[in-house]
Amino acid sequence: MSKPSLPKGVRDFGQVQMARREYIFSKIKSVFKKYCFQPIETPAMENLSVLTGKYGAEGDQLIFKILNSGNYINEWAEKKGTTIGQAKEMLPFISDKALRYDLTVPFARYVVMNRNEIVFPFKRYQIQPVWRADRPQKGRYREFYQCDADVVGTNSLICEAEIVMMINEVLNSLGIENFAVKINNRKILAGITEVSLAKGKETDVCVAIDKIDKIGEEGVIKELLQNGLSQESIDLLLPIIDFKGDNQSKLNFLKSQFANTEEGQKGIIEVEQLFNYLSDFKADVSKCELDLSLARGLSYYTGAIFEVKALGVQIGSISGGGRYDNLTSLFGLDGVSGVGISFGVDRIYDVMDELNLFSQSDFDSPRVLVVNFDSETEKNSIKILATLRSKNIKAEIYPQPDKLKKQFSYADSKNIPFVMMAGENEIKENKVSLKNMKSGEQFSDYLEALISKLEF
Amino acid sequence: MSKPSLPKGVRDFGQVQMARREYIFSKIKSVFKKYCFQPIETPAMENLSVLTGKYGAEGDQLIFKILNSGNYINEWAEKKGTTIGQAKEMLPFISDKALRYDLTVPFARYVVMNRNEIVFPFKRYQIQPVWRADRPQKGRYREFYQCDADVVGTNSLICEAEIVMMINEVLNSLGIENFAVKINNRKILAGITEVSLAKGKETDVCVAIDKIDKIGEEGVIKELLQNGLSQESIDLLLPIIDFKGDNQSKLNFLKSQFANTEEGQKGIIEVEQLFNYLSDFKADVSKCELDLSLARGLSYYTGAIFEVKALGVQIGSISGGGRYDNLTSLFGLDGVSGVGISFGVDRIYDVMDELNLFSQSDFDSPRVLVVNFDSETEKNSIKILATLRSKNIKAEIYPQPDKLKKQFSYADSKNIPFVMMAGENEIKENKVSLKNMKSGEQFSDYLEALISKLEF
Repeated sequence: MSKPSLPKGVRDFGQVQMARREYIFSKIKSVFKKYCFQPIETPAMENLSVLTGKYGAEGDQLIFKILNSGNYINEWAEKKGTTIGQAKEMLPFISDKALRYDLTVPFARYVVMNRNEIVFPFKRYQIQPVWRADRPQKGRYREFYQCDADVVGTNSLICEAEIVMMINEVLNSLGIENFAVKINNRKILAGITEVSLAKGKETDVCVAIDKIDKIGEEGVIKELLQNGLSQESIDLLLPIIDFKGDNQSKLNFLKSQFANTEEGQKGIIEVEQLFNYLSDFKADVSKCELDLSLARGLSYYTGAIFEVKALGVQIGSISGGGRYDNLTSLFGLDGVSGVGISFGVDRIYDVMDELNLFSQSDFDSPRVLVVNFDSETEKNSIKILATLRSKNIKAEIYPQPDKLKKQFSYADSKNIPFVMMAGENEIKENKVSLKNMKSGEQFSDYLEALISKLEF
Repeated sequence: MSKPSLPKGVRDFGQVQMARREYIFSKIKSVFKKYCFQPIETPAMENLSVLTGKYGAEGDQLIFKILNSGNYINEWAEKKGTTIGQAKEMLPFISDKALRYDLTVPFARYVVMNRNEIVFPFKRYQIQPVWRADRPQKGRYREFYQCDADVVGTNSLICEAEIVMMINEVLNSLGIENFAVKINNRKILAGITEVSLAKGKETDVCVAIDKIDKIGEEGVIKELLQNGLSQESIDLLLPIIDFKGDNQSKLNFLKSQFANTEEGQKGIIEVEQLFNYLSDFKADVSKCELDLSLARGLSYYTGAIFEVKALGVQIGSISGGGRYDNLTSLFGLDGVSGVGISFGVDRIYDVMDELNLFSQSDFDSPRVLVVNFDSETEKNSIKILATLRSKNIKAEIYPQPDKLKKQFSYADSKNIPFVMMAGENEIKENKVSLKNMKSGEQFSDYLEALISKLEF
């Protein structure tokens, strides 16, 4: 006998949470469908080789690896002799599978493996849990759902514009009104790195800047120095990232800085084109903010990057994404650019909870509980139940003859509005007693007559 | 660059499969809801201690264990010195979490951890994937979904009756007409073991008999002998299990055999009571068959057991379940008997596929594709798209100016019935061309006029 517990950072969901989560999923799904994305699912387990090296060195540490079945430990021991000085060498012997870390890399793998059946441009959505061996804390779980929509097989920035619109529509439909859609472009970050005389250090710059909210500007400076950036580069870089102003001022400022970086200029053109498309769509851009310090941690982005913050709550970003040009190349398929967005349903849940945005949802409570008096009357009670169900009235019987009080409190706690009872007396008269749990009103009548009352 | 692959025994699901699976899930869910079960979800990862010892020795081998994050291998090496002769001792150091193997044990863990909030009897349903390190083969996957409904906190056999009814309704609603609901009771199996002079060997008997379809009667005899049953016991046991006849003849035969086994007599009473309840409900029992050789592999069953086979196809059981009295006791909570049923959606899928029961489902195809001619006309095309969407017409724009032929074949392969085009000429006249992809008919008109046509 052991007292059961849950692994750190994972959760059960009871019926209230399930109903709320289902509500969020359904809103996201309906926006995904409106924009013509198609659903797919991929397995929880991927080959380790598919996942490693895709999320940066820090990401690799956070992948949950699965022990091989079979006796691999002994196999390794036999092969290696009897010392375990280099115990890390054992890993490939005992693990070659892992739990998916996000939905994007499995999707890239899916695209490559199914390239001959897929019609490009391919728009898919995917709603499944992912796992990260991160340190759990408020709003950060080790198992959480992602709701992703991606388009692959086109460079068109129309896709980026539609992503911004989808973000607006999902959050509006959930009643989240106060949010910021932060937009940047990896080519702009490359340009900033180049004009800061640190060309080639784009990844280090992005990884460091990405942490600015967590470790502050001083932390970023420290990390940049550690990664070999000169003080001169840092002094050039920070004022650009820190530049304040509206979107147009920022673009103008970048233009003044980017005379000598082709990559940076491309980034500006892409951002401008994105805003042009949004204007063609007459989309609401009031929440969109060009944020030059937005970097995103993942290494596979090459163009636009997005991050969405709910304002007025202390919860990290609730959505993020971007364009990746070379993700399928990692699996041997070149020339398939993609762009996607991921909604973090757990964080959205927390935001909605904190802002009291959940209404009293319908938990699909039964309409009627049929009381169970004793084994003599049970047969009749079952007949009542069967009749109710045949009329499509959601009903259940209390399965055993517990005390009436207990049966009523069961109905109460499950929000069941009506209780039906048929004891000896009722059976003699061929009637049923009905109690309205809200009003307390109770009377008896023929079952057919009661059913017509229920339908009100 | 690596050529990607999937781990053995797991699968991707594309949009056609997703739509079909969604269809199966929705039918099962609606029956679960009709019978007043409430949804919960539990995490994929459980503590290893929660799972081990619940599925028998063979089950324990099939649990997918997760490597601990952090440097546990080195920790073990330091603690143990430098030899790895007893490499198995390492396991607890490198793995203390595992993927759920079914939904029943995590549910028992959930019940114990939430006993103070739960109102008993508690009826829950749960639809999530499970993982087993089994050898993959046709109809047997390493990741598969279970759709479970369980009631805990009551001994009432009304629950067993409702489970039989739910099985009937789920399969009928899916169009599967030819199936057998095999019913037995672990107390009957205990009685058979007792009158075969093998009392105390119930588990061995069940585990061996459970394999009769796979290894035949000879295999069962061999395994029983290996597990210490005498030839005399086997000679007593097999004729009972092999007894042929209708349900009532089998019960009569058992009564003649069970004079000296109280446990066996209890089993008979339970089976009779179950059939009485089914008769009270006026349930269809034509598919129900008392199968004395039905044993179910899992060790936690203590009362009724169920297994459902689709007839006319070579696919294993599509549903199974039973009553368990002591599952929560394993986690320190006594006196909570439960009974449940699990639908294997993957096998049901295979059955429906083989029997051609899937109709041409609606894959939520867009109604309209807007053609993308070039960057000059794109702005107008986007305006058309935005108008369509504002009228709740599901539409998309081809994101880049590829050749018209390619754009049409995209519409074709995605089953999009209408294509809209607005080139220079149309724009001059403020009109749009509409092509009906089925009839080939094409004409141009004002957008508003076309939209009214689409709505037909």
